[in-house]
Amino acid sequence: MHCLVTGGAGFIGSHLVDLLLESGHRVSVFDNFSSGRRDFLSHHGDNIKIIEGDLLDLDAVKAAMDGIDIVYHLAANPDIRLGTTVTDTDLNQGTVATYNVLESMRIGGVKKIAFASSSVVYGEAEVMPTPEDYGPLFPISLYGASKLGCEALITSWVGTFGLQAWLFRFANIVGARGTHGVIFDFIHKLRADPNRLEVLGNGRQEKSYMEVMDCASAMIHLTTNTDDAINYFNLGSDDTCSVRRIAEIVIEESGLSDVSIDYTGGDRGWAGDVPKAMLDPTRMRDAGFSTNYNSEGAVRYTAKTLMEEIGLDE
Amino acid sequence: MHCLVTGGAGFIGSHLVDLLLESGHRVSVFDNFSSGRRDFLSHHGDNIKIIEGDLLDLDAVKAAMDGIDIVYHLAANPDIRLGTTVTDTDLNQGTVATYNVLESMRIGGVKKIAFASSSVVYGEAEVMPTPEDYGPLFPISLYGASKLGCEALITSWVGTFGLQAWLFRFANIVGARGTHGVIFDFIHKLRADPNRLEVLGNGRQEKSYMEVMDCASAMIHLTTNTDDAINYFNLGSDDTCSVRRIAEIVIEESGLSDVSIDYTGGDRGWAGDVPKAMLDPTRMRDAGFSTNYNSEGAVRYTAKTLMEEIGLDE
Repeated sequence: MHCLVTGGAGFIGSHLVDLLLESGHRVSVFDNFSSGRRDFLSHHGDNIKIIEGDLLDLDAVKAAMDGIDIVYHLAANPDIRLGTTVTDTDLNQGTVATYNVLESMRIGGVKKIAFASSSVVYGEAEVMPTPEDYGPLFPISLYGASKLGCEALITSWVGTFGLQAWLFRFANIVGARGTHGVIFDFIHKLRADPNRLEVLGNGRQEKSYMEVMDCASAMIHLTTNTDDAINYFNLGSDDTCSVRRIAEIVIEESGLSDVSIDYTGGDRGWAGDVPKAMLDPTRMRDAGFSTNYNSEGAVRYTAKTLMEEIGLDE
Repeated sequence: MHCLVTGGAGFIGSHLVDLLLESGHRVSVFDNFSSGRRDFLSHHGDNIKIIEGDLLDLDAVKAAMDGIDIVYHLAANPDIRLGTTVTDTDLNQGTVATYNVLESMRIGGVKKIAFASSSVVYGEAEVMPTPEDYGPLFPISLYGASKLGCEALITSWVGTFGLQAWLFRFANIVGARGTHGVIFDFIHKLRADPNRLEVLGNGRQEKSYMEVMDCASAMIHLTTNTDDAINYFNLGSDDTCSVRRIAEIVIEESGLSDVSIDYTGGDRGWAGDVPKAMLDPTRMRDAGFSTNYNSEGAVRYTAKTLMEEIGLDE
């Protein structure tokens, strides 16, 4: 199949590109390189086609659909916190961009879309682990609002124009090439001050983490092995890891011996942060996919890998 | 309270304005008069302030927030079917417009919003009557996608910026001043040809109907008597009415004696139409509100009233 990966130069996208090529697919990448990086893809040389473009440029997106069998739509603003200060970021880079992808697919006759949604669509769910049919869906971040808005656009294109869709609600995805998130932040803080690690909130925020290659493998497995009009899955591991535990693991992996952990207090890292999120991955497992790492394993592997990538010395 | 009603010159909005004034509130209306009508409000004279403006004009929306205590946000594209041909209608007039309302509220310090959502957020629900916590939410029309996207934007503004919200998921609202919808269409068809009524689909589509003054009363009752951060209610009656039965009622009320009903066939009126929708109004009732009309009563009253408004002669 000829796959178009939007955000294919990004953290998750570039791993997906690796695995799609390994699986024998043809791959085109659409990325504006705002957070994606060319060096995440450079090892593929001419084996992939890279389109530098912005999803807000409808004509560019239309042109990219030529000959495509399936779109893996991963491009989005990667920084959930940004939505609290620039309030139209997620509306544009999430919702409007996804509209452009769908409209271009409709016009170009592309019938399959796999979408990177998120556990944040559940908001502060009262059921944990949270199953896919949980309701009501009241996301509390602008990023989460956009993800739910995008899911709805996609299902409406299924219902109205006959698309086939895979909706993947990601846990926190961590791993090599990470460019943001709590582990990444902690490593940068330790680089700046090897004796003190400031943690936003009380450290009791607790979420499911999934290793990025597990995540990319799951996407390929499920788009290959499920075939409903709308296929929807939580992608995550069976357990959670607290921010407190992540801080300890990062410090352990750093080899630093004299680090004090300072908590800023409060039950969440920032307005719109969900204090606790745990996905029920039963449907994913029932469809035949199991992760290599649990949450703590994914965090530890990521801490180790990112420290090698970033280095601990300023 | 000083209430701003977006879409206040429209079908539902103008009834809400009537009842808000009756309840002693101060009312400003924001409307672009694309489907709203000045004569729906003219009986109020100078008792209301009318702002002619478009919600896509952010500066105009910001200006309208001065001194407002609560926004009743009803403005939207009223024609669900339009989304199938002009695919960015609901994205702009629904989602982006709602973003502009929320952003203007944030900047202007307005803290309460009541939103006209819809049963279409449930898509083709497998549980009927459908309760508010039903999931997954997979709307099948672009209008439904926009309504769900708007709900999500609103809850994210609650979670991130401390707004208080009322989400009202409307059944099919019918009544005086109706400017679209199945009863309205049937009357116009009978005006054009008093011997033949064409019905889209097989006539077995079956939905909850709610009389518009019931709907407006419910909104005022619930914004007055519930006080959570997010208050959410299905607004509908206890039963359903089929399109076949609506056709019969319209013909009965017309007094015409020789009308053949022709069905175009198929299980839905158009792509994106939901064949069956029945809301569970238990939460609304538990919060102390009961409707005056059931579905069939609302349909009959509407047929009678609209025929008086429109007339049956060409």
